Amino acid sequence: MPSPRFYSVAGPFDIHQLADIAKAEISGRDVADKLFNDVAPLDQATTDTVSFLDNKRYVNAFTESKAGVCIIDKAYADKAPANMALLLTPSPYHAFARVAQAFYPNHPPSDSISPHAVIHDSAKIGNNCTIDAGVVIGDNAEIGNHCRIGTNTVIDKGVIIGDNCDIRPLVTLAYCEISNNVIIHSGVRIGQDGFGFAMGPEGHLKVPQLGRVIIHNNVEIGANTTIDRGTGPDTVIGAGTKIDNLVQIAHNVVIGQNAVIVSQVGISGSTEIGDFAVLAGQAGITGHLKIGAGAQIAAQSGVMRDIPSGMKVGGSPAKNVRDWLKETVTLEKLSKQKRT
Amino acid sequence: MPSPRFYSVAGPFDIHQLADIAKAEISGRDVADKLFNDVAPLDQATTDTVSFLDNKRYVNAFTESKAGVCIIDKAYADKAPANMALLLTPSPYHAFARVAQAFYPNHPPSDSISPHAVIHDSAKIGNNCTIDAGVVIGDNAEIGNHCRIGTNTVIDKGVIIGDNCDIRPLVTLAYCEISNNVIIHSGVRIGQDGFGFAMGPEGHLKVPQLGRVIIHNNVEIGANTTIDRGTGPDTVIGAGTKIDNLVQIAHNVVIGQNAVIVSQVGISGSTEIGDFAVLAGQAGITGHLKIGAGAQIAAQSGVMRDIPSGMKVGGSPAKNVRDWLKETVTLEKLSKQKRT
Amino acid sequence: MPSPRFYSVAGPFDIHQLADIAKAEISGRDVADKLFNDVAPLDQATTDTVSFLDNKRYVNAFTESKAGVCIIDKAYADKAPANMALLLTPSPYHAFARVAQAFYPNHPPSDSISPHAVIHDSAKIGNNCTIDAGVVIGDNAEIGNHCRIGTNTVIDKGVIIGDNCDIRPLVTLAYCEISNNVIIHSGVRIGQDGFGFAMGPEGHLKVPQLGRVIIHNNVEIGANTTIDRGTGPDTVIGAGTKIDNLVQIAHNVVIGQNAVIVSQVGISGSTEIGDFAVLAGQAGITGHLKIGAGAQIAAQSGVMRDIPSGMKVGGSPAKNVRDWLKETVTLEKLSKQKRT
Repeated sequence: MPSPRFYSVAGPFDIHQLADIAKAEISGRDVADKLFNDVAPLDQATTDTVSFLDNKRYVNAFTESKAGVCIIDKAYADKAPANMALLLTPSPYHAFARVAQAFYPNHPPSDSISPHAVIHDSAKIGNNCTIDAGVVIGDNAEIGNHCRIGTNTVIDKGVIIGDNCDIRPLVTLAYCEISNNVIIHSGVRIGQDGFGFAMGPEGHLKVPQLGRVIIHNNVEIGANTTIDRGTGPDTVIGAGTKIDNLVQIAHNVVIGQNAVIVSQVGISGSTEIGDFAVLAGQAGITGHLKIGAGAQIAAQSGVMRDIPSGMKVGGSPAKNVRDWLKETVTLEKLSKQKRT
Repeated sequence: MPSPRFYSVAGPFDIHQLADIAKAEISGRDVADKLFNDVAPLDQATTDTVSFLDNKRYVNAFTESKAGVCIIDKAYADKAPANMALLLTPSPYHAFARVAQAFYPNHPPSDSISPHAVIHDSAKIGNNCTIDAGVVIGDNAEIGNHCRIGTNTVIDKGVIIGDNCDIRPLVTLAYCEISNNVIIHSGVRIGQDGFGFAMGPEGHLKVPQLGRVIIHNNVEIGANTTIDRGTGPDTVIGAGTKIDNLVQIAHNVVIGQNAVIVSQVGISGSTEIGDFAVLAGQAGITGHLKIGAGAQIAAQSGVMRDIPSGMKVGGSPAKNVRDWLKETVTLEKLSKQKRT
Repeated sequence: MPSPRFYSVAGPFDIHQLADIAKAEISGRDVADKLFNDVAPLDQATTDTVSFLDNKRYVNAFTESKAGVCIIDKAYADKAPANMALLLTPSPYHAFARVAQAFYPNHPPSDSISPHAVIHDSAKIGNNCTIDAGVVIGDNAEIGNHCRIGTNTVIDKGVIIGDNCDIRPLVTLAYCEISNNVIIHSGVRIGQDGFGFAMGPEGHLKVPQLGRVIIHNNVEIGANTTIDRGTGPDTVIGAGTKIDNLVQIAHNVVIGQNAVIVSQVGISGSTEIGDFAVLAGQAGITGHLKIGAGAQIAAQSGVMRDIPSGMKVGGSPAKNVRDWLKETVTLEKLSKQKRT
C-alpha cells in the first residue's frame, strides 16, 4: 500500500466503475456487491485490491495472487484463481494505468500565488494556477490556466506556457514556448545558448543563438535534463514525447511525436528524431542525422549515420542490431580459439 | 597549504595526538616535543606538516620528502629519510583521512533559521539546525537534529530527514525518507516520478508512481544526481553507499551497503546492486538485473545480464573483464594481419 | 527572423560597416547605398539580410540564395548570384559570428540589485552589476564589475568572480575563483567536494577535499555541468575553454586553454587536458592521464592511456582512430564470412 505519509487514495470503486475506468470487460468471479480500495502488485494484492498481469514472467504470481480483481488479457483467463474477478482487455498495462490514475488522481492546482514569488507586472498568469514560493517570472511571460509552478523555478522573459502544465521546483525556462499538459521535472534547463562557436587557433568565437525551444502538448521531461535553444531555427519536442532524466538535447534538434528518450541519452545538433522512435539509455546520436519513425536505438549505441524508419540498431558505431550481436559472438569465438 | 580564503585549520597536534587520531604506531625520529600544524602531499610537506604514502608509485617522493611526520605501512619504514617521524599502520590512507579530518573538521551547524526561509507550520525542525535563505520546507516534513539545509533547497511535504545531515544548496527532496549522517550535494533530485508509461501506438499513458526513496545512514550523493522514487515498491540506497555526480538511479533500484557508484553511471529500473559493488564511470546497467556483492563493473560497461558476486566485468555488452580485454587484443591482431 | 518576442535586433548596417565588423573585403554587386537589417541562413535570407557560406555542402543553397550580402571564402566568389554583394574572408564563420554579435549584442548589465537578493554585509560587489531575485551571496565573496548574477543562484563564502561575468540562474558556486568574461549556464555546480574516500571493508571514510576550482578568462560552462574542487591541489579550467552541458570534471583535473569539451563527457580525477584538445560527446577519460595539446577524442571513446599531442583516438578502450575504424571493418567482414 502506498505510504499514507505521501499518498492519499481515492475510491473505493466497484467492479462496474473499474470496468468503465479500465475500458475492460468483466469476467471471472461475481463481485458486483464489493468495493475495491487500492491497487497493488500481484504478490501484495488482497481481496480488496486491484492488480494486473502484463508480462508472462509473472503468470505464476498471477495464479497465486489474492487480488480481488485482476486486469489481464483474456488469453490468461483460464489460469485465474477461482476467487478472482477479472477485467479483460488486450492492453492490461494501459488499463491498469487508468485505474491507478483513478485511485491516485492528480490534485488540480489551487488558485494560490505565494507571497514569496516575484512576478513581473507585465507577466500574465491564467486562472487557477499555483505559483510556489521563490518562483521568479520575467516580463511578458505568459502562463495558461490550471498550471503549477514549483518552488524556486525561474521563468524568463517572454516564455509562454499553456494550460494544465506542471513545472516542478528549481527549473529554468528561457526562450521557450510550451503547449498544454506538459510536465517538467525538477532541475530541467530549457532554452540556454546552444554550444555554438566559430573555432580556430586564436580561440573560439561565440555565435549568437537566436532560436527558441518549442515544446508541444503532453510532453514529459525528466529531472536535470538540458534542452538548448536553436541557433536560428528552433529546437522542437513533438507532442506526446517522453524524455527521461539527464538527457542532453542540442540546438536545432527536432523530435517527432511520442518518441521515448531514455536517461542520459545525448542528441547532437540539428538531428531529427522520428515519431515513436525509442532511444535507450546512454545512446549518443551525432549531429545532422535523421532517425526514422519507430527506429529503436539500443542502450549505449553510438549512431553516426541516418537510421531508416523502424530499424533496430546497436553498438558503437551503431548498426543493424542483429549484425551487431552477431559480431559480438564472432569476436567471442575468435578470441576463444586464440586461447587454445 | 589549503587557501586560507576558504579553509581554516585546527590543531596544532603533537605526535601522540596524531597517533591517537590516526590509530597508528609511532616510529622513526623522536619528535615528542614538536607540534605539527597541517597536512600536505609528500612533495609539498615541510618539517611542520603531516603527509602519507599509500601508493608505491610515490616511494621516491617519500624518500625525498621533507615531511615532519609521514603515515606509512611499516613495509616502507626502512626507506624513510632520517629526519622523519613515522606513524605506522596497515591502512595509511584511512589513517591520513582521519588526521586530515582532525585538521579540517566539519563545523557543527549553528542554531539558525534564515528569515528568508519559508517553513510550513506543520513541519518539524530538530535542535541546532542551520536553515539557509530561500529554503522552502513543506507540510509535515520532519528534519532531525544538527542538520544543515543549504540555500534555495526545496524539501517537499512529508519528507523525513534524520540527524546530522548536510543538504547542500538547490537540492530537491520529495517522497523520500533519509536517515542519519547523509550528505547530499548541490542540484541533486530525489523522489521525482520514475519514467513509467504504458506505451502504445496511441501514445504513452502515465503510470502513477506510488513509492518512495529510502536513503540509509552515511550515504553521500554527488551533485546533479537523480534518484527517482519507486513505482509502488521503494527505491533504496543502502547504508554507507557513495554516489558521485550526474548519476541516474531509476525507480525501484535497490542498492546495498557501501557500494561505490562513480560519475555518470545509469542504473535502470528494478535492478539490485549488492554490498560493496563498484560501478565505474559511465557504466550502464539494464533493468531488472542483480549485480552481486563486491562485483566490479568497469567504466563504460554495458551490463545486460546478472553479475555474480565478486565478478569483474567490462565491455558493452559486459563480460568477464579478462575475456573482454582478450577480445580487444584478438581484434587488434586480426585487424593488423588484414593490413599486411 | 529571430522571434521578436525574445530578440531585438540592432543595426541596420551598411556594407562598409559590415566589412569592418566582419574584417572582410567587399566584393560582388555594389550595394553602397543599401542598409542591411538582420542575419539569416542562406535559404531564408532576403535582399535585406546577411548570410554566410562555410561548408561546401551548402554551395547549392548559396547559388540559389536571395541574401543581399553573403560572407564567403573567395574560392566561392565565382559561384555567387549576380544580385549578391560579397564579403570575402578566409574565415567566413568567424566573420559571421562577429556580424551576428553586432546585430544581437549582449546588453550590458544594468546597475540593479534585487531587493529579493540576500547579500552578506562583507561581500563586495563591483560597479554596474545586475543581481537578480533570490540570489544569495556569502561572506567575503567578491564580484567584479559589469557582472550578471542570475535568479536564485548561490555564491558561497569567499568565492571570487572577475569582471564581465554572466552567471545564469540556479547556479552553485563554492570554493572557486573565476576570472573575467566567464559565462556559466543554469544549473552548473562548481566547487563541491570531490569523490574522495579511503575505501575499505569497514566502509568508506571521507577524505577532506581542501582545494579550489580556478576558472580562467573567457571560459563558458554548459547547463548542469559539475566541476569538483581539488583535494589539495586545485581543479583548473584554462582560458578560452568551452564546456558543454552535463559534463563531469573531477577533482584536480587541469584543462588547458581553448579546449572543447562536448556534452556528457566525464573526466576523472587528476587528468590533464592539453590546449585546444577536443573531447567529443560522452567520451570518458580515466584518472591521472595526460591528454596532449590538440588531441581529438571521438564521441563515446573510453580513454585509458596518455594521448600524445595532436593524436586522434576513438573506441573503448580508445586507440588511434584509423586503427579503431579498421578494427570495426575487420570485425564486420569476419562476422559476414561466418554467416556464409
